[in-house]
Amino acid sequence: MKDLKYTSITDEMDCKRDKTEIKIGDIIVGKDFCVIAGPCSVEAQEQILKAALAVKKAGANILRGGAYKPRTSPYSFQGLGKVGLKYLYDAGKQAGLPIITEVVDTRDVYLVAEYADVLQIGARNAQNFSLLTEVGRAGKPVLLKRGMNSTIEEWLNCAEYILEQGNPKVILCERGIRTYETYTRNTLDLSAVAAVKNLSHLPVFVDPSHATGRREMIRPMSLSAIIAGCDGLEIEVHPDPKTALSDAEQQLLPGQFEALMEDVRMTLEFRDRLKK
Amino acid sequence: MKDLKYTSITDEMDCKRDKTEIKIGDIIVGKDFCVIAGPCSVEAQEQILKAALAVKKAGANILRGGAYKPRTSPYSFQGLGKVGLKYLYDAGKQAGLPIITEVVDTRDVYLVAEYADVLQIGARNAQNFSLLTEVGRAGKPVLLKRGMNSTIEEWLNCAEYILEQGNPKVILCERGIRTYETYTRNTLDLSAVAAVKNLSHLPVFVDPSHATGRREMIRPMSLSAIIAGCDGLEIEVHPDPKTALSDAEQQLLPGQFEALMEDVRMTLEFRDRLKK
Amino acid sequence: MKDLKYTSITDEMDCKRDKTEIKIGDIIVGKDFCVIAGPCSVEAQEQILKAALAVKKAGANILRGGAYKPRTSPYSFQGLGKVGLKYLYDAGKQAGLPIITEVVDTRDVYLVAEYADVLQIGARNAQNFSLLTEVGRAGKPVLLKRGMNSTIEEWLNCAEYILEQGNPKVILCERGIRTYETYTRNTLDLSAVAAVKNLSHLPVFVDPSHATGRREMIRPMSLSAIIAGCDGLEIEVHPDPKTALSDAEQQLLPGQFEALMEDVRMTLEFRDRLKK
Amino acid sequence: MKDLKYTSITDEMDCKRDKTEIKIGDIIVGKDFCVIAGPCSVEAQEQILKAALAVKKAGANILRGGAYKPRTSPYSFQGLGKVGLKYLYDAGKQAGLPIITEVVDTRDVYLVAEYADVLQIGARNAQNFSLLTEVGRAGKPVLLKRGMNSTIEEWLNCAEYILEQGNPKVILCERGIRTYETYTRNTLDLSAVAAVKNLSHLPVFVDPSHATGRREMIRPMSLSAIIAGCDGLEIEVHPDPKTALSDAEQQLLPGQFEALMEDVRMTLEFRDRLKK
Repeated sequence: MKDLKYTSITDEMDCKRDKTEIKIGDIIVGKDFCVIAGPCSVEAQEQILKAALAVKKAGANILRGGAYKPRTSPYSFQGLGKVGLKYLYDAGKQAGLPIITEVVDTRDVYLVAEYADVLQIGARNAQNFSLLTEVGRAGKPVLLKRGMNSTIEEWLNCAEYILEQGNPKVILCERGIRTYETYTRNTLDLSAVAAVKNLSHLPVFVDPSHATGRREMIRPMSLSAIIAGCDGLEIEVHPDPKTALSDAEQQLLPGQFEALMEDVRMTLEFRDRLKK
Repeated sequence: MKDLKYTSITDEMDCKRDKTEIKIGDIIVGKDFCVIAGPCSVEAQEQILKAALAVKKAGANILRGGAYKPRTSPYSFQGLGKVGLKYLYDAGKQAGLPIITEVVDTRDVYLVAEYADVLQIGARNAQNFSLLTEVGRAGKPVLLKRGMNSTIEEWLNCAEYILEQGNPKVILCERGIRTYETYTRNTLDLSAVAAVKNLSHLPVFVDPSHATGRREMIRPMSLSAIIAGCDGLEIEVHPDPKTALSDAEQQLLPGQFEALMEDVRMTLEFRDRLKK
Repeated sequence: MKDLKYTSITDEMDCKRDKTEIKIGDIIVGKDFCVIAGPCSVEAQEQILKAALAVKKAGANILRGGAYKPRTSPYSFQGLGKVGLKYLYDAGKQAGLPIITEVVDTRDVYLVAEYADVLQIGARNAQNFSLLTEVGRAGKPVLLKRGMNSTIEEWLNCAEYILEQGNPKVILCERGIRTYETYTRNTLDLSAVAAVKNLSHLPVFVDPSHATGRREMIRPMSLSAIIAGCDGLEIEVHPDPKTALSDAEQQLLPGQFEALMEDVRMTLEFRDRLKK
Repeated sequence: MKDLKYTSITDEMDCKRDKTEIKIGDIIVGKDFCVIAGPCSVEAQEQILKAALAVKKAGANILRGGAYKPRTSPYSFQGLGKVGLKYLYDAGKQAGLPIITEVVDTRDVYLVAEYADVLQIGARNAQNFSLLTEVGRAGKPVLLKRGMNSTIEEWLNCAEYILEQGNPKVILCERGIRTYETYTRNTLDLSAVAAVKNLSHLPVFVDPSHATGRREMIRPMSLSAIIAGCDGLEIEVHPDPKTALSDAEQQLLPGQFEALMEDVRMTLEFRDRLKK
């Protein structure tokens, strides 16, 4: 694809670039498979701590939790902001997990970067180029969701905005695109994962929770995504989804997540065998 | 979903229906995994025979080949018609494979049903309700592609048209939906496979060739589809894709298909272990 | 656009073709503005006659009414078939209006062509190429709806199937495309009308009833469509929409249609002035 | 629609709200029809001044010009930033026109608000809720483009973010949605204009330039949009489109814009007559 200086699998001399590897906590993303898990939103100190301990025990590598929530309506829960950030930070510390959280405003990038190990750019801000530039400058690893209406080419161009600032630590994340189908929240585009693995050296994750919006689909879509070649998963897990302030329908219970993690490990082992 | 009398996973008394099983050749679709393979179009007697022998050798269960081709332009190759049907029939006989071919006209249903073991309804005729009714009456197994703009609910209603005629032998086939993304020919919706397995007792196949339109994506999407729960695959294989009269970009070479079939078998074994 | 031999605005020698004009009843479609009106379905002899007299009085040029209805579910009203055709024919006779009705099966083309002055191809059969070929052979004027997922280029290719059979009497009809928006039934694409007027010499109609699925939007969309350059409108009118067996939400009452027709006439006069 | 406290046509007591009217320069938006015109980007002092004088002469009410440009690729022209803002300001002063320009970063809102009479939120930032909140606080009139994948309900909720901050001066602007159609840049959704006029008291504009991406479609779509009920238009005009640094294909020449303005005035007069 034209105009991709840094995200393309080859450089300008047409030499193949090395796969991007990013050290986060104990693992190297791009080399080690990575599972991000945790609740949609940080709702209370106890809730995020419970979630952290549960996902750590099940084998997750990074703890997620939203402190600044981009919600369709201004009257929906908007997140706890800086307080949520601190709760998340403390929970990560106690559980021994690095943390990821979404940043939604250029003015918050440095504050969020102080707490978070990975900055997340959500689908609604996927083409907020000021924000992409700013997280590029901050230098911390960035997980970049695909916009709900972004083509693969546009998505890679969004990554280019970050890399162009001198920050090579970008993880792409497919989270479903908007189509006419309404049974699922969005349409998970797993062929985009295979496509991006051919086009770019960047790691690609998949978020089956937002893509499907349905708890029962998270397992099949997670395992399919692994076989499609993804480098990691981001999965919503809540200690008590019924009471969740956002995304109640799609968050897994800790026990469900634990079972999923066993299947994830089996599938990864199988994928290794398949390659040989 | 409302109004589904026969395709729903439960009957009107809310008893769970048995999974549909359909004997085709040596296998029972719905129980045994099934691979349909062959060229997009039957182009010549030798071409289809070569293809038949190659896919049989690699382990395919059903031979495909289009005799009546629905093409966007009237000036593209329209298929060999009845002659193609005979070539396909003979090739299947020689290779020891049942055959599937598309029927596009109500007037041809009985002719095609004389030759073919399975009748295919293509995406462009997915809501051609007269044709659905007619293949329902013919009684032969039917592979029903999802329309490019059909919701899951509409797709199941299309199956309902066939079942309602007293023909329970319906196989659903996801083949990609139309979205704004242009890198792939269509967007393969694997979450629809998982959805349909929850909603219906009918077997669900996946056609990664038409969904992606890209040869290099057929392997990852085939294996992902297996993990998503599909009951079979339909894959385009041509003895010499460069010379193909249709879909040249997406047909596998026999050697590529053979390699894929090994991966398919490994993935099926793995899927069996995963369930336990 | 490539491969358009007959529908393109220019012929193969790059000479500009004359605008297609089709005599139907008292008017010449392509030259005179044409309003098709009537109920979604022919439901009873009295219903269609009432509708016919009402739309004739209001100034419609062609009477519509479905005898063969393509419905999402096989359990919805499927139309009265041949009986409906006769009711429609009689109603047209009594009201002094030519009639249009949908044909959904190649086997019915000659039967329907005996009764109807114009054959309609619906959106679900827009890429039923056997049916397009058959109405091409029948020689009667054809109104070809755009498929819900057809690009402009594909739509023109569908017309090409009809023209290529030697039948030049094709009217295109935009009826909304399928998008992610759910407030309207489909998304009316008026820029496609302007596009087609630049690309082809064929007349283009607009069906605001199916496009919007909302009674209150029919007036603004009809008048906008005129300004966008359409050659005619197809509007659903029912003597008693509350009792309609299909499309109850989008059919106008005769009084509403009468008021609309006054606005249509004013808008046409204005459009004439605008051109000068 | 649920959860709309301020943008709904009725208040919480179900009393009908007055239509929003916003004084900008010499006109009252929501009452007087308003045409915004000018180049996609401010490229040079002379270019924007020429454009300003030309659109003023033709009868435009507000001058547009991008100083901060959200571009798909970081290697495309990104706008002149603050310098562009000053050029735009000076050009507006000299031509006697209020100015509108896009703001893309929360940190720039107050700077841009110092210069601009109207702040524009572009389609890519339509769900950048931090930015919506900030322009809500700034108090200046805001023109809010519909997101390329926003439903009508989501779009109104975006407006709600601004109104909820105590800023009632919001203008909605339809600019095409993303669909599978590729002939036009986006698909202009004029039924959304009619829908929003029924659902909200806010003025609704249409941007045919970005919607169609084709110069020849701007006239028919502008006039259709007026008939669909819009309160204003935003049209790209460039003194020399061939040399434009962005959107070269869709900007009108001053002479074309002048001719269009005559048609706009005629169509508005006609619309007034139509209502009576």
